This record gives sequence, C-alpha cells and structure tokens, in this order.
Amino acid sequence: MNQEAACRSIETTIKSLGRATIDSPVSGSTIFVEDHERVVIDTSLGFFKRCMETGSEPVSFELAGPRRKIYFDPSKTKCAIVTCGGLCPGINDVIRSLVLELHYAYRVENIYGVPYGLQGFIPSYGHALVELTPDAVEHIHELGGTVLGSSRGSQDIGEIVDALERLNMNIVFFIGGDGTLKAASSVAREALERGYRCAVIAIPKTIDNDIAFVSKTFGFDTAVEEARKVITCAHAEAKGAPNGIGLVKLMGRDSGFIAANAALASRDVNFVLVPEEDFDLEGPRGFLCALEKRIRTRGHAVVVVAEGAGQKFFTDMPEEKDASGNVRKHDIGVYLKERIERYFQEVALPVNLKYIDPSYTIRSVTANASDSIFCGFLAQMAVHAGMCGKTDMLIGLWNNVYVHIPTEICMQGRKKIDVGGPLWMSVREATGQPVMVNEG
Amino acid sequence: MNQEAACRSIETTIKSLGRATIDSPVSGSTIFVEDHERVVIDTSLGFFKRCMETGSEPVSFELAGPRRKIYFDPSKTKCAIVTCGGLCPGINDVIRSLVLELHYAYRVENIYGVPYGLQGFIPSYGHALVELTPDAVEHIHELGGTVLGSSRGSQDIGEIVDALERLNMNIVFFIGGDGTLKAASSVAREALERGYRCAVIAIPKTIDNDIAFVSKTFGFDTAVEEARKVITCAHAEAKGAPNGIGLVKLMGRDSGFIAANAALASRDVNFVLVPEEDFDLEGPRGFLCALEKRIRTRGHAVVVVAEGAGQKFFTDMPEEKDASGNVRKHDIGVYLKERIERYFQEVALPVNLKYIDPSYTIRSVTANASDSIFCGFLAQMAVHAGMCGKTDMLIGLWNNVYVHIPTEICMQGRKKIDVGGPLWMSVREATGQPVMVNEG
Amino acid sequence: MNQEAACRSIETTIKSLGRATIDSPVSGSTIFVEDHERVVIDTSLGFFKRCMETGSEPVSFELAGPRRKIYFDPSKTKCAIVTCGGLCPGINDVIRSLVLELHYAYRVENIYGVPYGLQGFIPSYGHALVELTPDAVEHIHELGGTVLGSSRGSQDIGEIVDALERLNMNIVFFIGGDGTLKAASSVAREALERGYRCAVIAIPKTIDNDIAFVSKTFGFDTAVEEARKVITCAHAEAKGAPNGIGLVKLMGRDSGFIAANAALASRDVNFVLVPEEDFDLEGPRGFLCALEKRIRTRGHAVVVVAEGAGQKFFTDMPEEKDASGNVRKHDIGVYLKERIERYFQEVALPVNLKYIDPSYTIRSVTANASDSIFCGFLAQMAVHAGMCGKTDMLIGLWNNVYVHIPTEICMQGRKKIDVGGPLWMSVREATGQPVMVNEG
Amino acid sequence: MNQEAACRSIETTIKSLGRATIDSPVSGSTIFVEDHERVVIDTSLGFFKRCMETGSEPVSFELAGPRRKIYFDPSKTKCAIVTCGGLCPGINDVIRSLVLELHYAYRVENIYGVPYGLQGFIPSYGHALVELTPDAVEHIHELGGTVLGSSRGSQDIGEIVDALERLNMNIVFFIGGDGTLKAASSVAREALERGYRCAVIAIPKTIDNDIAFVSKTFGFDTAVEEARKVITCAHAEAKGAPNGIGLVKLMGRDSGFIAANAALASRDVNFVLVPEEDFDLEGPRGFLCALEKRIRTRGHAVVVVAEGAGQKFFTDMPEEKDASGNVRKHDIGVYLKERIERYFQEVALPVNLKYIDPSYTIRSVTANASDSIFCGFLAQMAVHAGMCGKTDMLIGLWNNVYVHIPTEICMQGRKKIDVGGPLWMSVREATGQPVMVNEG
Repeated sequence: MNQEAACRSIETTIKSLGRATIDSPVSGSTIFVEDHERVVIDTSLGFFKRCMETGSEPVSFELAGPRRKIYFDPSKTKCAIVTCGGLCPGINDVIRSLVLELHYAYRVENIYGVPYGLQGFIPSYGHALVELTPDAVEHIHELGGTVLGSSRGSQDIGEIVDALERLNMNIVFFIGGDGTLKAASSVAREALERGYRCAVIAIPKTIDNDIAFVSKTFGFDTAVEEARKVITCAHAEAKGAPNGIGLVKLMGRDSGFIAANAALASRDVNFVLVPEEDFDLEGPRGFLCALEKRIRTRGHAVVVVAEGAGQKFFTDMPEEKDASGNVRKHDIGVYLKERIERYFQEVALPVNLKYIDPSYTIRSVTANASDSIFCGFLAQMAVHAGMCGKTDMLIGLWNNVYVHIPTEICMQGRKKIDVGGPLWMSVREATGQPVMVNEG
Repeated sequence: MNQEAACRSIETTIKSLGRATIDSPVSGSTIFVEDHERVVIDTSLGFFKRCMETGSEPVSFELAGPRRKIYFDPSKTKCAIVTCGGLCPGINDVIRSLVLELHYAYRVENIYGVPYGLQGFIPSYGHALVELTPDAVEHIHELGGTVLGSSRGSQDIGEIVDALERLNMNIVFFIGGDGTLKAASSVAREALERGYRCAVIAIPKTIDNDIAFVSKTFGFDTAVEEARKVITCAHAEAKGAPNGIGLVKLMGRDSGFIAANAALASRDVNFVLVPEEDFDLEGPRGFLCALEKRIRTRGHAVVVVAEGAGQKFFTDMPEEKDASGNVRKHDIGVYLKERIERYFQEVALPVNLKYIDPSYTIRSVTANASDSIFCGFLAQMAVHAGMCGKTDMLIGLWNNVYVHIPTEICMQGRKKIDVGGPLWMSVREATGQPVMVNEG
Repeated sequence: MNQEAACRSIETTIKSLGRATIDSPVSGSTIFVEDHERVVIDTSLGFFKRCMETGSEPVSFELAGPRRKIYFDPSKTKCAIVTCGGLCPGINDVIRSLVLELHYAYRVENIYGVPYGLQGFIPSYGHALVELTPDAVEHIHELGGTVLGSSRGSQDIGEIVDALERLNMNIVFFIGGDGTLKAASSVAREALERGYRCAVIAIPKTIDNDIAFVSKTFGFDTAVEEARKVITCAHAEAKGAPNGIGLVKLMGRDSGFIAANAALASRDVNFVLVPEEDFDLEGPRGFLCALEKRIRTRGHAVVVVAEGAGQKFFTDMPEEKDASGNVRKHDIGVYLKERIERYFQEVALPVNLKYIDPSYTIRSVTANASDSIFCGFLAQMAVHAGMCGKTDMLIGLWNNVYVHIPTEICMQGRKKIDVGGPLWMSVREATGQPVMVNEG
Repeated sequence: MNQEAACRSIETTIKSLGRATIDSPVSGSTIFVEDHERVVIDTSLGFFKRCMETGSEPVSFELAGPRRKIYFDPSKTKCAIVTCGGLCPGINDVIRSLVLELHYAYRVENIYGVPYGLQGFIPSYGHALVELTPDAVEHIHELGGTVLGSSRGSQDIGEIVDALERLNMNIVFFIGGDGTLKAASSVAREALERGYRCAVIAIPKTIDNDIAFVSKTFGFDTAVEEARKVITCAHAEAKGAPNGIGLVKLMGRDSGFIAANAALASRDVNFVLVPEEDFDLEGPRGFLCALEKRIRTRGHAVVVVAEGAGQKFFTDMPEEKDASGNVRKHDIGVYLKERIERYFQEVALPVNLKYIDPSYTIRSVTANASDSIFCGFLAQMAVHAGMCGKTDMLIGLWNNVYVHIPTEICMQGRKKIDVGGPLWMSVREATGQPVMVNEG
C-alpha cells in the first residue's frame, strides 16, 4: 500500500494537443468514456475516510477507453510505432492490435513501423520505415520478439522530433521500458514546445513488472510460466546428483517479481534471492551456511536469484552502463556459482552445482493467452488515447481498470516487492528460507 | 461498473465465531492485517464524490490476510477440505496450499480430505476420510482434477452438520461453485444456530468466472489457454476443406467469458455466441445469413459458442436439471451443427462442418503458472480467515486485493459480460461479427 | 514378420518415364544413389539362409535419394502438389520441403499448389491453382492443417489427366491416404498409356499409420503425443468422480496403432479396444464384466477405443460410405458409452462416465520436431524421384531407410497390430486387461 | 552404410550364465522368441549378393524378446538398477518399466535402486539402496531426471562386484553411456570369472545418440524437440536487434546429431557447426567471412554449434578430463562468441550477439510420448534378457528391431554424421551454409 501512500500528492492530469471536436467513427453501440471518469488510486476505506474528514479529493487516474469526440481526422492521420529495449513476450501482439484498431475501428490507413527502436528515427542509421497493414501483421503474434526489431540506448531527442515532423507523424506509439518512457516524454514535450501536434502514447514494457503505478506489465505472466519450466529442470538436475544444487538466475534488475512468482508457481525452490531483501553470504546466518544446512539434511537444493540481487557484493568494482544507459549489473549468477563452489570446497562437502541462465529463452517466446489478450487491450486503449489527442502519457492497468497515466510519474521510482507483504511472505513459506543477514 | 452500482446497499460484514484471543503462531516478520482494513468496492471518483456529498460511507470489503490474534488453538484444531462440482484447473493447488499453510504456518496437524464432494459427509455413501499431510500433497499440483474426488448435487444440510460435529471439525473449507456456496452457507448458519463452533470458509470455483463480486476465479486463465489451442485446431480444420466451418462449443452456462476471452486470445474466430447477447438464426440479419455471407466471401469460418447461448431456441422443450440442481442446458452445440448443415443444404452451398466439444479436456488439465500462484494465495487467505474464526464467507479477489466476502452476496446473481463494455467491444472488433437480431 | 512373408513374391520394380540423361544440378558434394542400390525387405537371418539355400534373390526395395542423372530439365519443369483426405500433422511441412527442394536444389521455378484435393483438378469446381514459392511457404510449417486445402472423395481419372496435360505438368506430388494412392496410381498409368510424360510421386499420409510396407507415416508421432494428453485428462476425470469412467475414442479405422501407442505413452489406461482384437461386451468374460470388476475394486477406469474396434456389433446395420468411398464406421465410442451406462444401471452401480472424442484436435496440430524432420526427408526423396522420371511410386520408410515403393503393393492390404507381437503384449501388460471373448 | 561395412567381422554372440531351464511365467498368449532368431546387420542387397557368392553367413544380431525358458527362478531373483552419467529424458521411464515388467510379468519381488550411479555400490559413500515397488515408481515418469540419482566417474570394478555378491544380486541393469557400458562389461566379465552368476544388462543412454550399432538412443527425440524451441528463441533474438546473431550451443561431444536434427526441425538456422565437419574461422572461405556475408545481406543470423565442434582451435591448450574420464571439451560456444564479437569489431560492423547455452534445460525434461514408449520397450527387452541369463550385453534398436548386442562392440567407436549422407546434405540445404575450409 506504500505506493498509494506515495501518490497522494502526484499530478495525474493528462496533457492534450487541443480540443477533440471530430465525431468518433467507432461503432455506435460502443459505450464511450468521458474524460471526467476517473478511478481513485488508493482504494482503502481508511484513505477514503481521511479524505472525507479533510474534504480533499483523492488522487485519481483518468479512465482509458473510446471517446465520443476525437482530435485527429482519421483520413489524414499518420501513425508510427516503435519498439525499444529488450525483448518481452507480447510485443508483436501489441503491434498487431495497434494496427488493427487504427485500421478497422478508426479507418486510419497510414501506419508505419519504425525499425530497430529509437535508431529507426535517426537518418544516419539508414533504416527504412515499414508499412504496416492488417495483412502484414495478421500472423505476427505467432512469433516471439518484435517484427520491427529493437535496439537499446537513447538517441538525440531533437533529431527524433525532427524526423517525426519531417514525416508528418500525428501519433507515435512507443513500446518500451523506462529509458523509452523518458525518451517518449521528452519527445512529447519537445513537440509541444515546437507547436508540432504530435500525440505520444507509451505502452510500458518491462518483463520485470516493476513500473510504478502499473499493476502488471504485459509479458510478465508468460515469463513466469517459462521460468517455472526452467526451475523444474533445475530441480531435476539437483535431485539427479549427490548433493546437487540447481542455481537459476532470472531476470529482475531492481525488483524480484519474476523470481518470487516463479518460485511460487514451481514449489520446488528452497532459496529466492532478490534485490529487495538484503542477504549475507558468509557468517552463521548467511546464505552459504543456510545452503549447507539444507544440503546436509536434504541432499539437494534449488536456488533462484534475480539478476539484481546482492549487488552489494560488487561495491568495490567499477560501475558500468549498457547501451540504454542502464547501470550494468555485475553477474550475481556467476558470482554465486563461484562462491558456492568455493565454500563447499572449504567445508569439504563435494556438491554438484548446475548453473542455468535462461534469460533469452524466457523473454523471446510468444505470449500466453492471458498476455495476448492483455496486449490487445493495451493497444486498443492506446489508440483511443492517441486519436483524441492525448499526449505524454502511457496506458496502464490499475486495479483491473485501464487508465491514462502521465509518463512522468512512472519514472519517479520502481515498483518493488514489499518484503513484509503477502507475496514475499508466501515466498518465505513456500521456500522455508530464513532471513539471511547476520545482524539487524 | 454496474456491479458496483448494484452493491451500494449490500451487507458486507463477516460473521465470526467469537473473539480471537490467541496469539498467531505465524512468523513475526509478517505484517498482520486488522479487521478494520477494508477496500472500497466502487473505486470510481464519481462514486467517491457522491459519498462525500452525502456523507455516507461507501460499501467496502474486509481485507483478507493473517490476523495477530486467532480464534482456534492450532494444536487442537481439526480441519476438513471438500471439493464439489465439476473439475477446474487448480483444485489440487488449492488443496495443497491449504494443507501446507495449515501445517507449516499454523502447526495444525489434523487435516482431512472429504472424498467425493458433499457425498463424503453422508454416512450412507461410506466414503472414508483421507488424512492430508504435507507429504501426501507434495506432488498433487502436477495432476489435473481433484485428488479428493468430487461429486455434483446437494446433500441434506442437517446430515452434513451432524457429520462435522461428530468428527469435531473446527474449520471446513468448501471448494465449489454456486451450489456449493449455498450449501456452505447453510452449513455455516446451521452450525451457528446449533452453537457448534465451526468456521466455514469457501473458495469459489467456477471455470466460467461468473461469480458476482469476484474479479476472477481460479482456473479461468488456464481454461482460456486450452480453449485457444482448440480454436487454433478448428481454424486449421476450417481452412483445410472447401467451405470449411469449425464450430467449437466452450463452457459458459450463463456467462460467455471463456468464449469471449478465448476468441480474443486466438484472433481466428469469426463469430462468438454467448448467453449475454441475443441472436436469431433465421432471417436476413440472423446468424445463418451472416455465416453464409462469410463463407461465400472467405471460404471458411470459425464459430465459437458458449454452452448457455441461444437457450431461447429450446423454450418449447422441457426443462431438465442435473445432479447439482443446475438447469441442464439444451446442447446448443449439437443444435447449431444441425441447423447450420440444414441451412447450407437448403441454400445448396456444400460446407464441411467440423464440430468440436472439448469441455473435459479443458477443465481437467493442470493449472498454468498464473493460476497456480493464484490458488496458493486463495488457500492461504482462506486458512487465515478460518483460523481467526470467520465463517459463512468466501475468499475473493476484488480489484487486485484478496478480501472476505459474505457467501450470501455472491449468490444474488451472476457476473455477466457487459455487451456495451470493452470486453465485448473487443470481441466484436476482433471477429467483425454484426449484431444478429432481426429486430430491436 | 508376417508382412515380410507376404512380400516374398511381390513386384518391386519402379516404373520410369525414360532414361535419365541430364546432369543433376544437385551440389557436387552429394553422394549420389544408384538405381541398383536396394535394401532387402525381410532382414531376418532365417530368410537370408533360405534364400542362400535356394539360390533365390530376396525381394528388395530401390533406395531413394539423389541420382547423378535426372530426366527432366529443371529450367522447363512444372510441378504440382495436391493434398487429399483428412488432416494430419505435417502436411504443410511436406509441402514446404517439396517447394524448397525443387527450388533450391534443382532450380525448378514453376511449382503449383492444387487446391482442395482432387477437386482442384476438375474445372467444374473452379478452384484456381496457387503459385508456390519459397517465400510463400516460409512459415507454413507453423500452421496445422494444409494450406492448400483438402477434400475427400475420388474424381474422374481422365479429367485429372486432362487437366494435368492441359497445364503441361511434369511432376505431380500426391499427398494422401489409400484412396489417394489409388487415384495417383491410376493417373500415373493413364498418363503412361497416353504417352504423356508425367511423373506421379506419392507421399503416403495416414494418421493411423496403417499402410503396408511403410514402417511409419508422418504425423503419427505427433498424434500419439496429443492423444496422450487427452488420456491424461480422461484419467483426471475418471479419478475425480465416484466410480468415474473416462472413455476416449481415438482414430484408427482398421488398425489400432494410435490407441495402442497412446496407451503405452500414457500408462493410465486400463482397457484398449482395437479393430485387431475381437472382444465381447456381454458375458462373464466380456468387456463390461471386466470393467465392472475394475470399478468395484479400484473405483475408476480409463478406456481407450479405436474408432474401428467392435464393428461386429453393427453387423445388422446398413453399411454407409463417406465421400472418399471409405466404409463409414458406426460410432463405437457413442455405442460403448450407451452400453456402459445401461450396463451399470442394470447392475445398480452408479458410474460417472465422461466421453471424449478428440479427433479434430489431434489431427490438426502442427508436427512435432521428429515428424517435422521426417516430413522434410520424405519431400526431398520425393523430389529426387520425380526429377529422375520415376512414376507410379511412393516414398516409404522401410527399416530406417527411405525407399521407392510401387504404389500398387501398398494397396494390397493394411498394416495391422500383430496381437501376438511385442506391441500388443506391452499394451496388455501396461493395462492389465484380459482377453475379453467368451469363447475360443 | 559404412557402419555395416565395419561390422562384417565383428563377434555378435551373446554370453550366457548357463542353460535356461525354467518355464517362463510370462503370459501364455505371448509369442516367444528363439535364440536362433536373428536379424542381418547390413540389409543392402549388394551385401546379400556378395555373401551368396562367397557362401559366407552375414553378421547378425540376436533378437530381443521373451524366451520360453528362463534361467532365474523369479521367486528368488534379486535385481538392481543403477543410472549413471548425465541426465537424459526418459531415465525414469526406463526405471519404471523395468520394475513393472519384473514385478508383473515375472513376479520378481526384490528390486533395488542403487543411488547415485556407480558410487552407490561403494560402501565408503554410504548411500543406502532404495526398494523399488510398482507403487514407488507409479508416477516417476512424470518427473525429469532420475529418481535414483546419478554420478559421473568410474569406480573400482572389484568393489562393485564385491558389493553385488554381498547383496546376492542376480541381475543388474546399468543405464548409462560409454563409460558405464565399459564398467558394466568389466563387471560382467569379473563376475563370470569369479563364477558368480550375475546377469549384467545395459541400456545405452546418451543424449548425443552416438552409440555404434544402435540406431537411436532414448531421449534423443525429446532433446531435439527442446532444442528446436531454443532455436526459435534464438531466431527471435536475432531478428529483434540490428545485425542480430543468435548463437546456440547444443550437446554433441563427438557427434552433431542433436545440432543437425534440431536445425532441420527448426528451419531457422543459417549455420550448423559439428565435430564431423572441419571448418576454419579465418580466411576468405572461413566461417567468420561467411557469417559476415550473411549479416551484410540479411541483417541477422542463427548459428548452432555442437559442443564438440572446432576442437582444433584448442590444440595448444592442455587436455582436461571430467569425473567420468571423458576428455573435457574446451567451450566452443564461449570461444565462438568471443571470436565473432572480435571479428565484427575489426570489420567495424556492430552486431548484437545473444549466446544461449541451454544444455541443462534440454536434458532434464520429461520424455515425450515417442521416447516414453521407446523406454518402455527397452526396459521390457532388458528384463527378458536378464531373466534368461544373458550377460555382458546391451539392448539396442537396429533397423526397427530390438536386439541383443555384446557390450564390447559398441565401444569400438562412435556413430557419427556421415557428411556425404542424406542427413548432412539436408542440413546443408536447409541452412544454405557453404563448406567453410580454406583449402582442400
């Protein structure tokens, strides 16, 4: 609930290119949404009561959905779609639904794919735009990855806006993680400053599911499903050798949601190490001791570690950044592997450690049914928002409702596992793992 | 949002066996939940404002979760678990998590499975109770179905309570659909009247996902995933023959959620027929005409029908009930198959219709990762509720939060697809299907 | 081994359009096969010795593979592909590999798909040929079914050959079951008689795996994999209800290979009924009695029945044929369901029978890896055979080697389960089922 | 066919503990196999003719299957099962079927699992034997890995035989790769020399499918299926980034069968590097140049490398051995990754390489249906062989027939891909890869 607490003072008004005056071509049987329809962010009764006492209106998000009046004239609207950052199950589902919704619901005919992420806007890379039609996207949801290609790293915002203006784009859909949200927001603001009417709508993509104010990001469910399969393999490996240890590194740079959920889904995991909870390796209450105890009593163990866990062990080492400007995490998986092997050599207990780092095979599969449906809705809502001239916003799911969120507020921090909350409690129960810090 | 509207006057207080005075043995690092923590049911800002204006407190649900004080002394607590009605992915996950939570979190040692549903309580059936230990349930989540067995149909409430009293059961977990919720509620009330302290906690199970005030029921995601596979097959069959028609009947007695979601996940469906939307077969705007048009223009079609759709075609036929007392639906799948074949004979357009009725193979698979995690939480929350002496309630998920819901209010009606809302709009867009009534 | 016995006197010479004189364009590093390379059909040492004693050469098949000299000039060659009969996993893999092999290995540029089976040849149906290029087939193996469409039923051979001549086709690939093999053979002979140089190469397709002299047909492995999943569901259903019976009807018109193999793969089946083994329903040694015994002792049962089993129960009923001229089997699944239910009513033992008939969802999936590879080889071998002017033959796999088989000898009977052999012995052991005939 | 050539002078007589005189308890309807029933190894007609000319009997294998007379008295027979070496899909299927066949077909009641491979025989390790009953093994085929545990490395043969004698074991089933076959053979011979009547039957296990005179080993099909999935991911990664390269290392220490078959099954691979075909990295015809050409023309590439490929690049480095005494291969995957990255830096063409090493997740899954059935037959045949007193042999599949093979002849070399044969030709065609050596 601390997220809701944090949000009590945030600004949630959505920017707009101007008044929407054109009748929506969306089928008449649709129930249109009005801009004043909003949902309260914090749904606890206590918060409600406090608001009543103080007479203050609670912070709320604008509802997503089709509006009766739109801003752009569909027959003259030109749209671009760009996918950035690492792969994630469902990107092609989003692309496909954007195209179909624009084409069939709004009769927009000019839709272009920008190849290879933000690079695709920059002339010097020489990537040609891809025309996107319903035929071109018909089967793309059956493929993993992104048919547009992606790339990491930022590009000059001015150059991006120049490119968009030159192409006369009216709506740009950015699909990407925080670097991309930041770029999208800068693009939106730069365009507004220039007086160039371009709606910038983002659909947040992070397999780690760690975007603030977004209950769930697409691809996460599928990733957990795949991670569960890998853990089942690690368990077979662990049981298949004397003192077998299966060590699995899962995605999760700042938040351990995949690790925690995969452990719950699998029920074969004995230790889950995540960025949110501190742990020591050495010492009587440290992880290595706990692992030794497990091995001595049960003869095997499965350990799941999120890539961002235990970064404190690398504080002496120099910080590196990847092409997207993300701080590159030191490889906790390889580090743990070595530390475990060394430790058991020292205590003269021969173990068989199998290290599995499955990231690419988790993130590049096709979306499962649930994510596929979810992607469809995100895309539709994004199209509705873009067509009525909203900008500098993203589509999020909040308490089961699709909402418009100003891009800015999602960049104020990341969603993290609350280590006192029910998710982490369940992980503790399912694994039986102790708190592994020597003091505190 | 109409559901929320309906609930503004409902009673959401949970019955209790008495004051909880024993310290919870649940690990100290847990963040306990207080009974006064509640979430507002209707989260729209407009509703909030109206409450503020009138000074009325909004209707809210009690939060689920561990309480600092519990009612039953774990060392003397005896629990029973019973599974009723049709199979649904995840039942074994729920059973397993109930047992593990009772055993490891609360140190309850006496846990029994009641075989074959409500029959298992009735002496004349002669089914012996099954002892449930962590070892016994370790691998059951890898199996579909229910290891306890199930049965349909009601049993005498007095006899059930007699059996529970004789066995000295303190908490009974009912896993089942509306018939079961009704029985559970009657058992709870009968026990209260007799002064017999028995907590009755229900975990709603319906593959149709149609329980009022419950955002999602377990097994639904998995069912949609399986249904998608079947539709892919139907599509291959439809395209594989001249004028091929793939007709798939999916579950959904009163609500078409599985049909609608599977259609969205698959993207190959041309017609979805559900109980919530009226349709005619004959006539210029009827389904058969629309299907003919599709076949003549595209050469193939995929039709998905929920089992409860089109019941108006059977009004002349006598009503039948199954063992659970549910009104037995006339088989719309077989009926449509015959009507389609006859129609195309009459219009002299030879078609190849392949009819697929996959129900048993959808509901008896193991839960996917998402459902498996979900089942774990439902079970944990149910144990927390039971241990602190709540009764006549069920565990529900409302706006992403686990809550306590009085059994009664879930029986006041079913959740249905809002045919003006975004789900059905998306289905219309994805299928391109018209409204198929001749008048109105 | 009785098949080998049967074949000692068969004619296995392959017909040819004429002398192959053109140098093959296939890459020089290839090891070419000579026409005199053959493999002996019966590989038993005893047979070998008898041949030595009598000085007789054993019957053998010509090896498939690329020949150094080919008959058709690739730059002028025109090919057609037609797919007939019911769906089977892998058809699209075969089509794809035919096209790629013709295009890349032989540089053939004119390749056409004939739509909807033999209908596609007949002008009155008005189906247009489909041009097949590497691009057009690139992703088709990711789809179940056949992209060309299929149909059942025979067409006039003269009309087919007229169509081929008119189109100037040089090689025609028929993918289909026995009706199709028969048609292909007639087409080949008619063309030869007319002096029209057209190579007719068949790739046998039968999900039942029952073609004589062919060790395995494509799609069979995949079908067994799918059937295993269905049986797992039937098992969950059977265990999930008091006296639960899961009854699964699987494909197998004349041979029970899918039923037998799926039962072995699943290990949850208690009775397998196939066309090859007689069984009674009534009587002290009949199936119903055996099933009752199982239910009374174990409380549940899984029964698998091949569609062609127990046809003796229908002898009084009139014979029907489907569009392909196959005798239409009476529905043993529905019949058994009714007989079982009636029987248990009579003996007053209430059972819960769940009947599953999954055929369409088994045959329309994509090929598994093993079948996909297999389809690739069949297609390549077919192209090699066609290009060097062989005709009236099919590509078969015999003792792990790809061979040329005269179409005719495969039509002399079907491959059947040897009820004294190891496959059926294993089924008996795995199920524990008795011989279920009252006399004999 | 070179394997058959190699075998013309091999000794294929099976050793025996003595005359089998006890009537088999196997059900009377079984068709028993006689020892003189054999199948010819080389089935080519040419070979047959040469034998006829010279009057020499061709080399043949003894048929596996139940014998009318057995050697051991079932009521007094004690059996052990041991699993050695790395995991492979299907081990638990084999264990399960051995137990069920011994128990149900022969009524053997004393069956023990030896834990953790050959270690389990050696007292100093202190591993206790596991009793194996039908109940204990009922569900083990639903788990990957081996329920008995495994280990690498040899143990003292004398100590193993001591242990067996002490335990009075009559039949020992060894499931393992070449190290294990060698150990099994030594155990068998040592026991014979001591006059201790112990039948030693091996079931060859190698996921690489490279055992001489064995057409296929269990688990291979499943491994190829899993490898195909990984390649699909690598393809998505490659297409998802500018100049993306997906590099997948697959199992295959001495033979590239998994790599070759997975490439054929996937159809997305551009280069397959295997131990059987030499390739250079540098130079105008080397791999790096070919890869550059592919990247420049198509913008992405998928490379599959078998772990034993390219070992010539490591000749300067010292040889290492693993615990089983296998020469440890230098990691060609990591090496290639570095070389590729360095090369493209040098030619100033920025690429995005994603390296995937999935081994553990391929080998630890459960067996697919086809492998599961196969494992069942291997186990049954092994039991038949052991019960009639055969020893120092393994069960193999040769040309579709189960046979008895003296352990020794399988250790004379490995099965390898014939780079002039149809498998490799197909890989070349499917990938379009050139011969990548600069000279020769």
